[in-house]
Amino acid sequence: MERALPYRWDDNKKTLWLIDQRKLPHEEEWIPVHSAAEAAEAIKKMVVRGAPAIGVTAAFGMVLAHLAGEDLDEAEKKLAASRPTAVNLFHALERQRPHKGDLEASLAEAMAIWREVEETELAISRNGARVLKGQVLTHCNTGPIATGGYGTAIGAIVEAHRQGRIEHVWIDETRPYLQGARLTTWELQKAGVPATLISDNMAGHFMKLGEVDQVMVGVDRMAMNGDFANKIGTYSLAVLAAHHGIPFYPALPLSSVDPELESGDDIPIEERSAEEVTTIRGVPIAPAGFPARHPAFDVTPHRFVTGIVTEKGVFYPPFDEALRRAIGEV
Amino acid sequence: MERALPYRWDDNKKTLWLIDQRKLPHEEEWIPVHSAAEAAEAIKKMVVRGAPAIGVTAAFGMVLAHLAGEDLDEAEKKLAASRPTAVNLFHALERQRPHKGDLEASLAEAMAIWREVEETELAISRNGARVLKGQVLTHCNTGPIATGGYGTAIGAIVEAHRQGRIEHVWIDETRPYLQGARLTTWELQKAGVPATLISDNMAGHFMKLGEVDQVMVGVDRMAMNGDFANKIGTYSLAVLAAHHGIPFYPALPLSSVDPELESGDDIPIEERSAEEVTTIRGVPIAPAGFPARHPAFDVTPHRFVTGIVTEKGVFYPPFDEALRRAIGEV
Repeated sequence: MERALPYRWDDNKKTLWLIDQRKLPHEEEWIPVHSAAEAAEAIKKMVVRGAPAIGVTAAFGMVLAHLAGEDLDEAEKKLAASRPTAVNLFHALERQRPHKGDLEASLAEAMAIWREVEETELAISRNGARVLKGQVLTHCNTGPIATGGYGTAIGAIVEAHRQGRIEHVWIDETRPYLQGARLTTWELQKAGVPATLISDNMAGHFMKLGEVDQVMVGVDRMAMNGDFANKIGTYSLAVLAAHHGIPFYPALPLSSVDPELESGDDIPIEERSAEEVTTIRGVPIAPAGFPARHPAFDVTPHRFVTGIVTEKGVFYPPFDEALRRAIGEV
Repeated sequence: MERALPYRWDDNKKTLWLIDQRKLPHEEEWIPVHSAAEAAEAIKKMVVRGAPAIGVTAAFGMVLAHLAGEDLDEAEKKLAASRPTAVNLFHALERQRPHKGDLEASLAEAMAIWREVEETELAISRNGARVLKGQVLTHCNTGPIATGGYGTAIGAIVEAHRQGRIEHVWIDETRPYLQGARLTTWELQKAGVPATLISDNMAGHFMKLGEVDQVMVGVDRMAMNGDFANKIGTYSLAVLAAHHGIPFYPALPLSSVDPELESGDDIPIEERSAEEVTTIRGVPIAPAGFPARHPAFDVTPHRFVTGIVTEKGVFYPPFDEALRRAIGEV
């Protein structure tokens, strides 16, 4: 199995390299990042994406701010504004805050955050694999390229396949940004897991035919009651899975749980460019200038969730207490 | 309001002209069709699409078979094989059967079928408009360009807008073939109806936000119990609408009801090319050769249907008897 990471840290040249995920799977182009401003721009433009990977990138962004001689408070502000729904980003920036002015400590912290991502995702993968069997459907991209570790939902899927528990994966293409079609396909191909690409609107059809045994997805941000924001289309999948009696699992590091959010109602939904809906990879698919909406995320209420896969185990309802205990708030 | 028809009959040159719907909305290219073989090819390649328009095209296909001196039985066979789920196609060919060898009668029959499509859709539009208000969500393309008349779901939507009953339409892009993004946008723009394009996986999100008052879709083929086949994604919409308590209406001419089908379980599902999923308008969106599935249709059970909009009125459950009476089988 091959694992594709989204970044490399070049300690000699003090440069962060990001693979340009917008060009995958057709080109593998690495972009050098020399400052926090560039790191923030890369996050905003989705050169790098996925909640945990954004956290690591932001942590290195603060290291680069020291190296580039940027104003450190300004640098933190830019990074914080680059992707407003990603809680990992705020965690990473918070951990970097005490090291402002100390390059070495800042670099050590970034490396530690990265190492923790790897350890956490290995645990998520092992826990998630236990609830999978047969055919799994997944949405968006939650693999190493998105997380910098082993992946969340994809980590569990790859591990379940290694254990012989699952035989086939359905991949939602995940419009408008096509993370499933472009990235999850590419990653599962590298990992040697049999998979089939479908349009998002086919998921219900294959559920009805009995060809989906469970759904596992990633999480952008989870509230304490188990409600969670994730890539647009996740909510529809959850409703469809519930209707067909198919278990539905979000998989996430506990760092994506926001203890300040009581429910999903409080999660702000990022609205992205309408052009990402009216064009596909630069090709127009609608009359020029036609109005479009592009909520990047939706919120799935916890009542649709069978179990929450984390590095500390799989939690079942009621979620509040399990989550509070897991993040050390009880 | 402008209405865009998919075909023109040139009586001087005895030629059927089809607008190449694969190139819309960016180019308006008209293709001359001189034989049944060419008409069958145009249907197969989706130059022309939509159940009623396919019926009219097949009827003219038989006229062209006379003019081109093709073997008439062979011609009928080719047309019948061009789109196996479209019942209108079989109706049209059946009506042409007694006219084999009589060009003038065949032409008169094709013109009659066309005229009936117009009258039928005007009635569907008026009946459907009565159940619409506020914001409607629609899938695929069911307008004049697909039907040769006023449209079914889109006919009703345009009429409801004319009457001031609806203010806004959500258009599902309708992957993989993007009929919503390419054609419904273009038609509603011409008709002056305010509309917004969304990715298919956003429908559930906007339903949850209370921004969808009803869903109206077309029908490829309906069984006597009200189950129906329609563009892939329709079934998921029906489940989502039911979950949110949103009325869900298929709109169709009664010629799309197949009296020989008791339920939707008997409707064969056409599987189209995987390449239509792994590419978009020729642009690859997945690694080369990645496996994909492409069921062109799905089947929506009648339990999700609020009412069936037809030229003879809107029918409510139980559907069996209403449909039987309407098509004269009682």
